[in-house]
Amino acid sequence: MPLIVTGTVGIDTVYTPDHGHRENVLGGSCTYFAAAASFYCDPIRVVAAVGDDFPDELRKTMELFEGVDHSGLEVRQGSKTFRWGGKYLDNMDQRETLYTDLGVLAEEPPAVPEAFRDSKYVFLANTHPSVQMGLLEQLPERALSVADTMDLWIDTAGTELAQLCGSIDGLVLNFDEAEQLTGKKNTVAAARHILDMGPKFVVVKKGEHGCSIVHRDGIAALPAYPTEDVVDPTGAGDSFAGGMMGALAREGDNGVDPTSFAAIHRAVAHGTIVASYNIESFSLDRLASLTPKELDERYAQFARMVRFG
Amino acid sequence: MPLIVTGTVGIDTVYTPDHGHRENVLGGSCTYFAAAASFYCDPIRVVAAVGDDFPDELRKTMELFEGVDHSGLEVRQGSKTFRWGGKYLDNMDQRETLYTDLGVLAEEPPAVPEAFRDSKYVFLANTHPSVQMGLLEQLPERALSVADTMDLWIDTAGTELAQLCGSIDGLVLNFDEAEQLTGKKNTVAAARHILDMGPKFVVVKKGEHGCSIVHRDGIAALPAYPTEDVVDPTGAGDSFAGGMMGALAREGDNGVDPTSFAAIHRAVAHGTIVASYNIESFSLDRLASLTPKELDERYAQFARMVRFG
Repeated sequence: MPLIVTGTVGIDTVYTPDHGHRENVLGGSCTYFAAAASFYCDPIRVVAAVGDDFPDELRKTMELFEGVDHSGLEVRQGSKTFRWGGKYLDNMDQRETLYTDLGVLAEEPPAVPEAFRDSKYVFLANTHPSVQMGLLEQLPERALSVADTMDLWIDTAGTELAQLCGSIDGLVLNFDEAEQLTGKKNTVAAARHILDMGPKFVVVKKGEHGCSIVHRDGIAALPAYPTEDVVDPTGAGDSFAGGMMGALAREGDNGVDPTSFAAIHRAVAHGTIVASYNIESFSLDRLASLTPKELDERYAQFARMVRFG
Repeated sequence: MPLIVTGTVGIDTVYTPDHGHRENVLGGSCTYFAAAASFYCDPIRVVAAVGDDFPDELRKTMELFEGVDHSGLEVRQGSKTFRWGGKYLDNMDQRETLYTDLGVLAEEPPAVPEAFRDSKYVFLANTHPSVQMGLLEQLPERALSVADTMDLWIDTAGTELAQLCGSIDGLVLNFDEAEQLTGKKNTVAAARHILDMGPKFVVVKKGEHGCSIVHRDGIAALPAYPTEDVVDPTGAGDSFAGGMMGALAREGDNGVDPTSFAAIHRAVAHGTIVASYNIESFSLDRLASLTPKELDERYAQFARMVRFG
């Protein structure tokens, strides 16, 4: 059954301390999400907008990933594509934004095409929570809905974010954002507080330190896959979410409750692994060459790495 | 067979953001280490020194833990016990040192008593690497030797630390210290660099984010046990090391190679669990009331938390 993702398709310029830089490469939350999810389920429907400056060459890169339906990607005449430039600092876990050209992101959000309204699995990538809520309402047949958020919305749209939390099954956010949203300094305490706002589960991301899952039915924690080969962390969170949601869609299609603790635990491990490949290159280069066999091997290796006793 | 620990016994004053403060409570690396290890193996031999100001009442607390042999604790007439005061900041993962009164730590290090020289399992808690080396040389029958270190010695005694690394089986250190020691910004890369200096394995601690094990025969990573109930993080690293070494001593006594990857993987999980209890109280209060059943239950729960698929 279809997995839908709403978010951004953009053009990135990325500077890294050890691997040089790349200008005007494919970026955006939907892009990373859909590429990662494509290893797990089919179809993946993308809802986003770009301007008439969006290069054919980047579109072709997006189309490398089988099972991704780009018919919901609006190309707006006279508008500009979202562009982001960033520079990673020495430890690769922090970055400076060099510029953000909102382009189409400053306009009306894209609508969910009629043909996509029967989507069963829903991921709302990071944007204003009112926009996320509006998109969610266009997806009445959802069986699983998960949203990402960020510090900006916690600061400026707390009420709308609280309302969104009452309508979704899961929330994905960073460690410091969970603290900011709840005023709780401890990950588990913060996540439990978010559960009280509505969702059945919260996935708290900690970058290179892995993530925690706090679910109504249990708690789990996973380290990141320990890798030496970090080229560009851009898209780590979105490819993580794509792997997680793709794996949950696959579980759902196999008759497993995709909101169950066990399914989410496995799905988060899949997200961890696909994200670990993603950061081995700039943009989607590594995902474009990735094979299911490589994913299976690293997943099995990761399972051994965390399994003791 | 005996596990020996060399390090400090001290008197701490600790301020926390949410749980008030405690003055003049039992502290020190050996104290936390031995209490934690006592749940796993027997006997544990303590080599440390205190001054003639060391209160009987704190000595009695140390003696609550069965199997710990304090005959190697020197009480020096006319000397002062090591005292430390610290204040935890809001996120509980950072602290300020309010004062450090070295006392006996500024004097000659304690010698290993003749009766302790046949110790099989050795843990050198954090001190100057030359002192650690001197202690190690007094333990010719060691089958497993592990040292802890810190930023101060990396800065001021790098040569001696490198020499120590050539003589031990394992090194335990913090995430940022591994980077500082090696100039490598990535945990795995830094730990591999340390392996080139001599040890068979490195345990990189990340506080509330868990730890990584980089061993000649493999890599593993574990999150911290996700807990809401952090009262005082003091001694987390030393109780972690105590649980780890106690578990390794037990494995060694059961015929398992205590330097093997599988044994260290399990032992690090035990260290994680005993440390998670330790931080639920000030000083050794929680460890003093801890039962083997509680340890077993949380260990099993932790195994389920990280085991997916």
